[in-house]
Amino acid sequence: MSEQRVVRPTPISGFPEWLPEVRSVELRWLDHIRAGFERYGFASIETPSVEKLDALMAKGETSQEVYTLHRLQADADSGDGDARLGLHFDLTVPFARYVAQHFNDLTFPFKRYQMQRVWRGERPQEGRFREFTQCDIDVINVDQIPLHFDAELPRIVHEVLSGLDLPAWTISVNNRKVLQGFYEGVGIDDPLAVIRAVDKLHKIGDDGVRAILTGEAGLSEEQVNACLELAHIKGSDTSVADEVRRLGVRSDLLLEGLDELGFVLDSLSDLPQGSVVADLSIARGLDYYTGTVYEATFDDDPGYGSICAGGRYEDLAGQFIRRRLPGVGISIGLTRIFAKLVAEGRIEGGRACPTDVMVAVPGADRRSEALRTAALLRERGFNTEVFHQAAKVGKQIQYASRKGIPFVWFPPFEDGKAHEVKDMASGEQTEADPASWTRP
Amino acid sequence: MSEQRVVRPTPISGFPEWLPEVRSVELRWLDHIRAGFERYGFASIETPSVEKLDALMAKGETSQEVYTLHRLQADADSGDGDARLGLHFDLTVPFARYVAQHFNDLTFPFKRYQMQRVWRGERPQEGRFREFTQCDIDVINVDQIPLHFDAELPRIVHEVLSGLDLPAWTISVNNRKVLQGFYEGVGIDDPLAVIRAVDKLHKIGDDGVRAILTGEAGLSEEQVNACLELAHIKGSDTSVADEVRRLGVRSDLLLEGLDELGFVLDSLSDLPQGSVVADLSIARGLDYYTGTVYEATFDDDPGYGSICAGGRYEDLAGQFIRRRLPGVGISIGLTRIFAKLVAEGRIEGGRACPTDVMVAVPGADRRSEALRTAALLRERGFNTEVFHQAAKVGKQIQYASRKGIPFVWFPPFEDGKAHEVKDMASGEQTEADPASWTRP
Repeated sequence: MSEQRVVRPTPISGFPEWLPEVRSVELRWLDHIRAGFERYGFASIETPSVEKLDALMAKGETSQEVYTLHRLQADADSGDGDARLGLHFDLTVPFARYVAQHFNDLTFPFKRYQMQRVWRGERPQEGRFREFTQCDIDVINVDQIPLHFDAELPRIVHEVLSGLDLPAWTISVNNRKVLQGFYEGVGIDDPLAVIRAVDKLHKIGDDGVRAILTGEAGLSEEQVNACLELAHIKGSDTSVADEVRRLGVRSDLLLEGLDELGFVLDSLSDLPQGSVVADLSIARGLDYYTGTVYEATFDDDPGYGSICAGGRYEDLAGQFIRRRLPGVGISIGLTRIFAKLVAEGRIEGGRACPTDVMVAVPGADRRSEALRTAALLRERGFNTEVFHQAAKVGKQIQYASRKGIPFVWFPPFEDGKAHEVKDMASGEQTEADPASWTRP
Repeated sequence: MSEQRVVRPTPISGFPEWLPEVRSVELRWLDHIRAGFERYGFASIETPSVEKLDALMAKGETSQEVYTLHRLQADADSGDGDARLGLHFDLTVPFARYVAQHFNDLTFPFKRYQMQRVWRGERPQEGRFREFTQCDIDVINVDQIPLHFDAELPRIVHEVLSGLDLPAWTISVNNRKVLQGFYEGVGIDDPLAVIRAVDKLHKIGDDGVRAILTGEAGLSEEQVNACLELAHIKGSDTSVADEVRRLGVRSDLLLEGLDELGFVLDSLSDLPQGSVVADLSIARGLDYYTGTVYEATFDDDPGYGSICAGGRYEDLAGQFIRRRLPGVGISIGLTRIFAKLVAEGRIEGGRACPTDVMVAVPGADRRSEALRTAALLRERGFNTEVFHQAAKVGKQIQYASRKGIPFVWFPPFEDGKAHEVKDMASGEQTEADPASWTRP
């Protein structure tokens, strides 16, 4: 062994990494989410991890902490003529760029899912990572996009999340037209400023929002009261629209928004009571949303932040192509959800390896018999490994036990004798034929 | 639509991206490779995309063009105290770091697979990308690792590659001990220098290698002749060892290497003739290999470079932990293989979406019937989408046809009438019940 300096590695803050038994559960989640997306006909795409910096910045997302790439040996070169590249901070900007770039090769409405890592150079904190996986679905179309997608997307997300063993969560829905129409109806000039303030309601409370709105936003007390009244309306059926109308504000945009919100709630009324609710305080900070907006949070820990988010946008690819391409999408914050459950010790049942059967080696001269048995079991669909050496039975069983392998197979010590298989859960050991054995 | 500058996006050189129909094939490949690895009991892990720069550099891989990460807004901060981070350029260094870091939580021999993107800041050229996916399997153990893994790994890779529709390929095997022992046996002081020169044989030919060996390496003509004779030995059975012995070089290390090479060839003798061959010119440039080495290339385009590569190493994690952790591993260059086939138009049969059945909407008032039908089909395991609006039947069928959806379902125009389903391949349209229909 060479005499080198040994530096025991430590985790890099904000870049999560899992042990195999935890990863196996994450993989199960990813498979489940993918199957849920495909069940509704969404197609997989992946985009490069990087985009040109001007594409990343085009939507004015300068508040996002972007990681840029530099070649370590760039100095030694005669010059690096490459465009500046940054790691994508979400999957929405890359998707918009993808649709514009491949416009002529896609059939619309284009429905895609994308499950990839994204990067943000933020200070890591609870629920915030520097590298994390998002699972996005979006539908994008030319010129206009039917409203029923606004209802289908939360349905898909509901179905997908319901299949994971999560603490209770709620998907909240709102509509930007309701907010904008209402704010305009009470005489507010800059509805976006109010939207951004109200979006902070759950963090800073009524008083915090009031301070912003009366302060820098310059609203009257009456206007602020109206905004806060609106923000406190919540409910899971169309009575929500009645409550808003009762506030007496007149605006065509408001009415349009209430119709759309009502349509979404109506369409989802078959889902379990309370799983999707209208929450008029939900605004989503991003400027590009124009209609329906979504946000899901854990019921017992709303302060952890959104675990899913999205909405409808009229023109996300506008900087890339002279076509109107409206869309609607939701993103599931996979790592944010998963990491919380890992931290709370709620990820259980993961296995350290995918092996169904470990074939024991009775002695060095019986290895070929063990290999033949394993090949047969593999052909029959069982993930099978052969113990790596001839060793005492106890040692071989201990290995299987530590790796959580459910069955240990014993080929005979000599030809003509019977095989046996041990069920590690029950401890029972029985005769078995590798050509016909089935999992009990 | 806002009046903004429109910049039609162009691809970023070296960062491949696929259309949905191509991606669907890539996804099928990834599933197939994963299933192949799991069939032999290998566990999935993923590591962060980044490692600390000193970890990436510890093996002296300074020839690799590493991308480092910088926070775009780092200047504005009070100071960035983070360790310098680089994107990993392979999955071997991260794996070694992972094993050292989680040593106490792993059961050995630890068998893992890892299918992730890696990055190299090289000038892109044919077969070379800046971002690409590798599929690695490695077994690592404490103190020693049985030789039969040297044979199991190429078997797994053989099985996996055979299930993909690839142009003919060959896995070449050699053993570093054979090379090193032979070189020492003919009196060469610095065998590694010769290994690195011989590794270029396929690129620069006999004369090129001869020039290096007589030049900077300072070998005699006799030594060079012996090295080149060895390098030209090739064969798929143990007669290869006889040919080497016939060269008359004496070295215990050489004999040990020939035994190991013979064991690997013997163990794989049941595979189709010529699929795994011993090729004494295969050296692999990397310093850390110590025994068996592997390299696979396309038969009709060996100059395209290796499509799989790997070998045995005695102590890869030595810079991270004071334990001897030998291992053996192979990496499949997924993107390198896949991109070549895409470029040659050999990726066929991919579908633009995963939808099995598109449910047509006979009219706006029948949408709820269409949604009910779709929900039933989904429950029964069919990926199903509902056409996005009430439109002429021809338009709805055209959408399904463009997306390659195999079946179009027609709910009845009124309750009580029969459903019908159209097989898009045959054009046949028949009555069907969504509660019992099966794919013909």
